[in-house]
Amino acid sequence: MSDVRVIIQRDSEREERVVTTGTTAAELFAGERTIVAARVAGELKDLAYEVKDGETVESVEISSEDGLNILRHSTAHVMAQAVQELFPEAKLGIGPPVKDGFYYDFDVEKPFTPEDLKAIEKKMQEIQKRGQRFSRRVVTDEAAREELASEPYKLELIGIKGSASTDDGADVEVGGGELTIYDNLDAKTGDLCWKDLCRGPHLPTTRNIPAFKLMRNAAAYWRGSEKNPMLQRIYGTAWPSKDELKAHLEFLAEAEKRDHRKLGSELDLFSIPEQIGSGLAVFHPKGGVVRRVMEDYSRRRHEEEGYEFVYTPHATKGKLFETSGHLDWYADGMYPPMQLDEGVDYYLKPMNCPMHNLIFDARGRSYRELPLRLFEFGTVYRYEKSGVVHGLTRARGFTQDDAHIYCTKEQMAEELDKTLTFVLGLLRDYGLTDFYLELSTKDPEKFVGSDEIWEEATETLRQVAEKQGLPLVPDPGGAAFYGPKISVQTKDAIGRTWQMSTVQLDFNLPERFDLEYTGPDGTKQRPVMIHRALFGSIERFFAVLLEHYAGAFPAWLAPVQAVGIPIGDAHVDYLHKFAADAKKKGLRVEVDSSSDRMQKKIRNAQKQKVPFMVIAGDEDMANGAVSFRYRDGSQENGIPLDEAIAKIAKTVEERVQV
Amino acid sequence: MSDVRVIIQRDSEREERVVTTGTTAAELFAGERTIVAARVAGELKDLAYEVKDGETVESVEISSEDGLNILRHSTAHVMAQAVQELFPEAKLGIGPPVKDGFYYDFDVEKPFTPEDLKAIEKKMQEIQKRGQRFSRRVVTDEAAREELASEPYKLELIGIKGSASTDDGADVEVGGGELTIYDNLDAKTGDLCWKDLCRGPHLPTTRNIPAFKLMRNAAAYWRGSEKNPMLQRIYGTAWPSKDELKAHLEFLAEAEKRDHRKLGSELDLFSIPEQIGSGLAVFHPKGGVVRRVMEDYSRRRHEEEGYEFVYTPHATKGKLFETSGHLDWYADGMYPPMQLDEGVDYYLKPMNCPMHNLIFDARGRSYRELPLRLFEFGTVYRYEKSGVVHGLTRARGFTQDDAHIYCTKEQMAEELDKTLTFVLGLLRDYGLTDFYLELSTKDPEKFVGSDEIWEEATETLRQVAEKQGLPLVPDPGGAAFYGPKISVQTKDAIGRTWQMSTVQLDFNLPERFDLEYTGPDGTKQRPVMIHRALFGSIERFFAVLLEHYAGAFPAWLAPVQAVGIPIGDAHVDYLHKFAADAKKKGLRVEVDSSSDRMQKKIRNAQKQKVPFMVIAGDEDMANGAVSFRYRDGSQENGIPLDEAIAKIAKTVEERVQV
Repeated sequence: MSDVRVIIQRDSEREERVVTTGTTAAELFAGERTIVAARVAGELKDLAYEVKDGETVESVEISSEDGLNILRHSTAHVMAQAVQELFPEAKLGIGPPVKDGFYYDFDVEKPFTPEDLKAIEKKMQEIQKRGQRFSRRVVTDEAAREELASEPYKLELIGIKGSASTDDGADVEVGGGELTIYDNLDAKTGDLCWKDLCRGPHLPTTRNIPAFKLMRNAAAYWRGSEKNPMLQRIYGTAWPSKDELKAHLEFLAEAEKRDHRKLGSELDLFSIPEQIGSGLAVFHPKGGVVRRVMEDYSRRRHEEEGYEFVYTPHATKGKLFETSGHLDWYADGMYPPMQLDEGVDYYLKPMNCPMHNLIFDARGRSYRELPLRLFEFGTVYRYEKSGVVHGLTRARGFTQDDAHIYCTKEQMAEELDKTLTFVLGLLRDYGLTDFYLELSTKDPEKFVGSDEIWEEATETLRQVAEKQGLPLVPDPGGAAFYGPKISVQTKDAIGRTWQMSTVQLDFNLPERFDLEYTGPDGTKQRPVMIHRALFGSIERFFAVLLEHYAGAFPAWLAPVQAVGIPIGDAHVDYLHKFAADAKKKGLRVEVDSSSDRMQKKIRNAQKQKVPFMVIAGDEDMANGAVSFRYRDGSQENGIPLDEAIAKIAKTVEERVQV
Repeated sequence: MSDVRVIIQRDSEREERVVTTGTTAAELFAGERTIVAARVAGELKDLAYEVKDGETVESVEISSEDGLNILRHSTAHVMAQAVQELFPEAKLGIGPPVKDGFYYDFDVEKPFTPEDLKAIEKKMQEIQKRGQRFSRRVVTDEAAREELASEPYKLELIGIKGSASTDDGADVEVGGGELTIYDNLDAKTGDLCWKDLCRGPHLPTTRNIPAFKLMRNAAAYWRGSEKNPMLQRIYGTAWPSKDELKAHLEFLAEAEKRDHRKLGSELDLFSIPEQIGSGLAVFHPKGGVVRRVMEDYSRRRHEEEGYEFVYTPHATKGKLFETSGHLDWYADGMYPPMQLDEGVDYYLKPMNCPMHNLIFDARGRSYRELPLRLFEFGTVYRYEKSGVVHGLTRARGFTQDDAHIYCTKEQMAEELDKTLTFVLGLLRDYGLTDFYLELSTKDPEKFVGSDEIWEEATETLRQVAEKQGLPLVPDPGGAAFYGPKISVQTKDAIGRTWQMSTVQLDFNLPERFDLEYTGPDGTKQRPVMIHRALFGSIERFFAVLLEHYAGAFPAWLAPVQAVGIPIGDAHVDYLHKFAADAKKKGLRVEVDSSSDRMQKKIRNAQKQKVPFMVIAGDEDMANGAVSFRYRDGSQENGIPLDEAIAKIAKTVEERVQV
């Protein structure tokens, strides 16, 4: 037994240790229960890994991103074992960790029932208590094929090795360098309880799973293709503690209440008709009002900020996207072409920039015109995979509040600074307040232009971002192919982070389009281009605000700002007069003159989340007044008519919540 | 020789006459020089036609639609003869009459030069003076093939008989029942001078052509297909008198000055970049302002009128257009499909109605909600043949100010009446004043729904149209496949007629989409649907207004309403202050602070057709005043600053021309 020198790394703390050959990572971290795996030379290892001389062994905490993935992956194994114990005929698909949890796909005769899920969960608790050991074993392709002969989907994976694409766009690594099987071994006897083809790593034992829950089941095609068999997928979640599980379930319940798809239907704002296709929404009249108010305010602020408004079509010859590089770098995100005029390919546009470049280039430009800020509410179409399309937040057609600023290199930094300040101000106007910035830099596999140009652009963006005094997070490789970007990330009312505005600097497209302006000395110069969208997509921003406000929009955005509720029939006309006067001030006021009883009308208005319920009875009429009832149930009586209208108008004008 | 009894019909005047066998129509109308052909049993005949017993022979005046076509067709023959006399190697394509003139296509070595055109015109005058006779002769296919052995394109036409499609979408009849050749015969000797495969009829002689002129030449593919050889086309015009020719040429010169494509570029309003494709326009910032003002005003008026605003996507699964019938009846007008999700065809929408139907159908509807008026600025895509695409007036992508009204049968007549009144009022607001109505009825080959439903819808529309007291012109067969329509035709400043608004009644789509509302008695009822667009297409209406005003928009629509012109450098700041104050009132005011001299600045503003030139010099500054100069060159001095702003604002507010 010779000595083995290793370095143990916990966060920033380094410790050198000399151990004997055959020492495992588990032994290095003995007693540290929150450490569930190790990272050696960048690779994740089971704690059972035997350390080697000269290696640096990093701890992987269960609460870290890697730790959570390992926890959830191991729980997926436990679930699959439970399913096969209860349904021995079930064939295994794949079972990766996903955001906040995991899933596993099974080929079974019929879909799982809620009772099945309960039984599976119970069986999992049993397995968890058994404390089975996860044990890694390298196998040859041949051996794996023999061992997994009864698992047809696993056999298919052995065949393709590498990675399998799932229908939510994630790639699941199955092979890698060598093929491995993980055995679940009995804690006492070491007998084999269950096994799976898997790259790992895993928790030491099933007892290391602190808290989990099964969530729901759904159908899913094998490897995401409609041509393949339909499998049954069970989703679950797992957490480092029971408290974290509880908090997560509470968060989900709150998020579900706020789900924009649910609110969109309840408040009659929009729908995504099956006949049109997923990711393609129609806005109903009430949603149309909200959207229009959002757009109108944005337009007004952009006008004040010196933007000029253009319009461009949604389809174009492919040639344009050859010039821009989109067909080289972005073809996967584009709809397939339509052939017109005997052989010319036309495409729906996935971005507006190439068309704005043509407007810049429609005539000669002088330095006197710069910065030239071209703005459009431009609807673009992107071919998202059907599995990732989600309501309005990940759509296949959406409208960007898109602008391209053409300026000189000297104007660039100031213009970026102004733009970021403008963006943040505008987002605050819509009621968002909690921001951080992200700096997305070059994807080394997907970019146009020279390294020098990228470095200069990135450095300029960094300086401008730092000036805002907000947290700045790096996002290496996250840039679009034509230039680096700053994105504004915002937290909503329940703490979720959304990427909102993006500001991108671009030295490349001006080159590709050969854009020029005449400088003060009469020479031709190349402008710099800034791409920026503040909402990102109007549909998505609409959804974010809808969830942020849980449908209870501030009055300026609310489709109906006030609803008149008469106590009796005698007060209907009085409220109609009030509504007519309010409409003259530009307010959106309705009167509920249905045959419902007053309490029902109040409930209806509350369900519709109308900011002001304007109630009138005999006393109100006698005093030329009305009563306000708010969404929280509080009430304010005897407000003179003029004052009532002025009060609603002021709330709208100031864009505040009531 | 036996007697032949015929009835001669001139307009409403009938005359019975008995003539001898062999009498020609020419003899019946002897001395009546304006009669150029006859119509017998609905068919056009040469005047050389020998009338038969019992026939009614109608006169065809040269100024009638048929007469003009015959005149122009005969002139095309004269042109073709002239070309072949001058260019014996030229091979003949086709030579039909078209609007206001004719063309003929030739296969020649190189394009015709302007000198060639002059020479051809001179030769045509010669032929005209020769007074050659047009003489009809029936031939067998075989004989025609032999006679026209040296004319390959004619041989191809003999092969296909029937009709040949041209690249401007017109069908040219070449065969018909029997194949005929027209000989041009020498006036004195009767010798054959030239001949053409042609259905006729023609003028009696070349001397019957009163006035003609060659206009221009262009390249054109044989039978409109890029796969065929490129021919050279010469366009000409011909008229019943020299005065009419002169008036036409003057009209063309005026129309050319107003051509929206030319003005669009001169005034920097829009362009149709080759890189995007014909029929797909981009609006530059100045055009964007005009368009936005047009839209904003329309939206405001629609809101006042009780319309609700929706948004729908531009692409959808084909299934939707199967439900609506578009794929059965309108597929030719649609872009080809894009295949998504492994086998689902998606289409760009050519109309918005199916999507609005889905919004109507998104939840249960009550009779209390009707009429429900759903409005959208909806961009649609239609696959127009490349030969008919023209600027913004016939485009491949355009935005309709489109609404669909859902109402009960009882509300229908009143709603149609209100809609027509609203339409006409709105068109007047934009400065159009001269209207007539057209009632388009069923195309017997292209319709859905029962005859009864069509009759009822047509009769309702007729009554509503008559109520407006405007001229009502029938348009048999002009309806869309789903219902009859009224269209508003308007004359512009130089007397051209444009089809603007359409109001269509539709009992069919509500059936196909199974649309329902709950009636007062609780039963399910089928709503009636009204399709209506007032501008038709925003792009087209923009072009019509641009041509109507010859670019000199009234101030409310003008991209720049006033431009400040300082007499010297000392007056620049003074005008900047004026402009800033005016902007606060929402006016669009610029100051020309360039280094140009004042006269140049005035010329520039005049070229840009800015309604108010606001001039300031020492005296103005001393008096706190400015001077106005108008587009017609008239001037108004010493207007106090406040008054000047108020005056511009009033012109804008009242939407009047200055």
